[in-house]
Amino acid sequence: MNVHPDKAALVTPLDWTAETPAARGPIVANGPHANAIGVHAGAYAPYRALAVATGALGPEHRPDLTATDPVVTIGPYPTWRKPFATMDRFGHMVNNAFAKDIRAGIDVRPSIAIAAGELRFPEIVEALGAGRLHADGKVLDRAGTIHVTKIAIEPVWHLPTLAIRLGIGDALLRRALVEQTGGMYPALVERPEIEVFLPPIGGTSVYIFGDPSRLGTNAPVTCRLHDECNGSDVFGSDICTCRPYLAFGIESCIRGAQAGGVGILSYNRKEGRALGEVVKYLVYNARPRAACGDREEDYFARTKAVAGVEDMRFQSLATDPLTWLGVRRIDSWASMSNLKSDALRDAGIEIGQHLVIPDAMVPDRARVEISAKKAAGYFS
Amino acid sequence: MNVHPDKAALVTPLDWTAETPAARGPIVANGPHANAIGVHAGAYAPYRALAVATGALGPEHRPDLTATDPVVTIGPYPTWRKPFATMDRFGHMVNNAFAKDIRAGIDVRPSIAIAAGELRFPEIVEALGAGRLHADGKVLDRAGTIHVTKIAIEPVWHLPTLAIRLGIGDALLRRALVEQTGGMYPALVERPEIEVFLPPIGGTSVYIFGDPSRLGTNAPVTCRLHDECNGSDVFGSDICTCRPYLAFGIESCIRGAQAGGVGILSYNRKEGRALGEVVKYLVYNARPRAACGDREEDYFARTKAVAGVEDMRFQSLATDPLTWLGVRRIDSWASMSNLKSDALRDAGIEIGQHLVIPDAMVPDRARVEISAKKAAGYFS
Repeated sequence: MNVHPDKAALVTPLDWTAETPAARGPIVANGPHANAIGVHAGAYAPYRALAVATGALGPEHRPDLTATDPVVTIGPYPTWRKPFATMDRFGHMVNNAFAKDIRAGIDVRPSIAIAAGELRFPEIVEALGAGRLHADGKVLDRAGTIHVTKIAIEPVWHLPTLAIRLGIGDALLRRALVEQTGGMYPALVERPEIEVFLPPIGGTSVYIFGDPSRLGTNAPVTCRLHDECNGSDVFGSDICTCRPYLAFGIESCIRGAQAGGVGILSYNRKEGRALGEVVKYLVYNARPRAACGDREEDYFARTKAVAGVEDMRFQSLATDPLTWLGVRRIDSWASMSNLKSDALRDAGIEIGQHLVIPDAMVPDRARVEISAKKAAGYFS
Repeated sequence: MNVHPDKAALVTPLDWTAETPAARGPIVANGPHANAIGVHAGAYAPYRALAVATGALGPEHRPDLTATDPVVTIGPYPTWRKPFATMDRFGHMVNNAFAKDIRAGIDVRPSIAIAAGELRFPEIVEALGAGRLHADGKVLDRAGTIHVTKIAIEPVWHLPTLAIRLGIGDALLRRALVEQTGGMYPALVERPEIEVFLPPIGGTSVYIFGDPSRLGTNAPVTCRLHDECNGSDVFGSDICTCRPYLAFGIESCIRGAQAGGVGILSYNRKEGRALGEVVKYLVYNARPRAACGDREEDYFARTKAVAGVEDMRFQSLATDPLTWLGVRRIDSWASMSNLKSDALRDAGIEIGQHLVIPDAMVPDRARVEISAKKAAGYFS
């Protein structure tokens, strides 16, 4: 099994912080030119393996990127001078920036895609009907359709930068990534000269409200960082405030864009505080069964008993998409999480006004969550 | 890096198809007793690695499973005699079935969790208001709250069974899983005697409508298999019919449960036909930019040009949760996908009535998708 070429063959040099794509070099995850561990769309790699194994997909397939380019220009911004830990800031430009390499047969693929979108979000239609929002014909039209730019970002980890951000050594990080995953990608340890890792985890979906060309200017920014909660975001489970906060975030972003600013909703695939849904449901069962019922003081304790930690999201990883969008200041911040706001401040992003979700949007059963979070220092 | 013990140390025997948990043996993914490759909640394993690397989580943490047991009994059913390829049918029982092993210090963890839930789904509230649904006080109450049982299932692949189901050899499957992921889990090839793999991919969330004790009886089953589409399911993107079909599926499941049957909505984390969201957005851009506009004949062609295949979902993997729920026949089937219905029939599950989504639920912009699917043989 010689998946990665030997050291002498690392023929695609990378200078991670170089200012231009040409000086930085392409990220290559496949073939003799590979300078990254893992593959693109890593969270779906086992499915791709099944497609190749069954003959549905040729192992030599290369994407035809004709007409796939972003619908808007993002960057470069002055904020791009900071080193990114979790994404490739040139990931949306590869079709042009590395056209020569692609023509030469090197397998360079986008890790970011940018499309236009139209959304119908029931709570926004309702807010429009109730007069809490107004249609401007651009951001939000009279039928309730929201016009957005949507961006999919795959995780691209630069391990030396990630180690610095987490305050640990590069070797310790690599060793933990192999050992704590049960032996996933031994190359992380065996090939320390490879700096880039495409981890098989969910990425980030960013929705931009308003004119994206205002990004990186002084236009006021409204923002919510939202971590996936499938049960609430999709199905409307009433045990937590996730979808209500999402609706509140979208409503706030629309309002900010209509006032001449830009709204950013960054959605991270980190189900159940990155503990997964099985752990989440185990905790749901344990909470009300505790001796004294579902009390706020047990909210985090039961999670810790099952999972070992209360939270595994590492919000310091979630700031890169905002830095990538040129954000230096969030004028209106739709979140109650101190973990998120602390991470933003550490990333050099100022926060102005904290928006507070209206009480009417919080389901009754979710009040234990809100109280527990306040008691734990959220909002502080 | 000696993550997996050597062959002689495979001290936890597994007899995959054995009838009882005791005869089957526990699935162990960690420590000297490991008989599986990978780890539980594998899709979040890199986050766990960060938690250990930063000292937030002790590597020796074992979950405290007190009071986490399922809220209802699922199985055994006669359908459990068929071999499962993608899940552990005893995954919800480990706290009791393997209590002795757990007490002895063996790291056995649930791969399935079952909780009660209450949902507020805006389209259902609307259907109730419009008189298309009625409140019965059990499945659906007058406030629009839906009472469900929700089940989170992590993927647990039995590689020999999976290979048979895909019609390929076990060695070919293992080799592709290593090579096409860029060298993830070389133990898949190096340790062919280990039969179980916990792949780092999203799992399945199942919502049961009505009384779960009716599962495995002759009570009529209403069912939708839904594959994740974050942009539509969460944000209401109008380019596809995913959320409308989800709403239709939930509405149908409620109706089925109210008529004395049971509704099953099985939600698979397979974003963008298991191609991921970056590929999906690249295709969104390419479709309307094609010479003749966004035509139904290009719908699948553009996906294939970018991704190499039109679809990577492998619906034959999606039938196990239904088999696990004792389903032998789906009386009312809320889907237009022939890929799904063919897979069900291959799994020995009969399909009765095909429910058709009302035209009013299909967004205008999504008509290209519907037409393309019909032209490609969906519904056939």
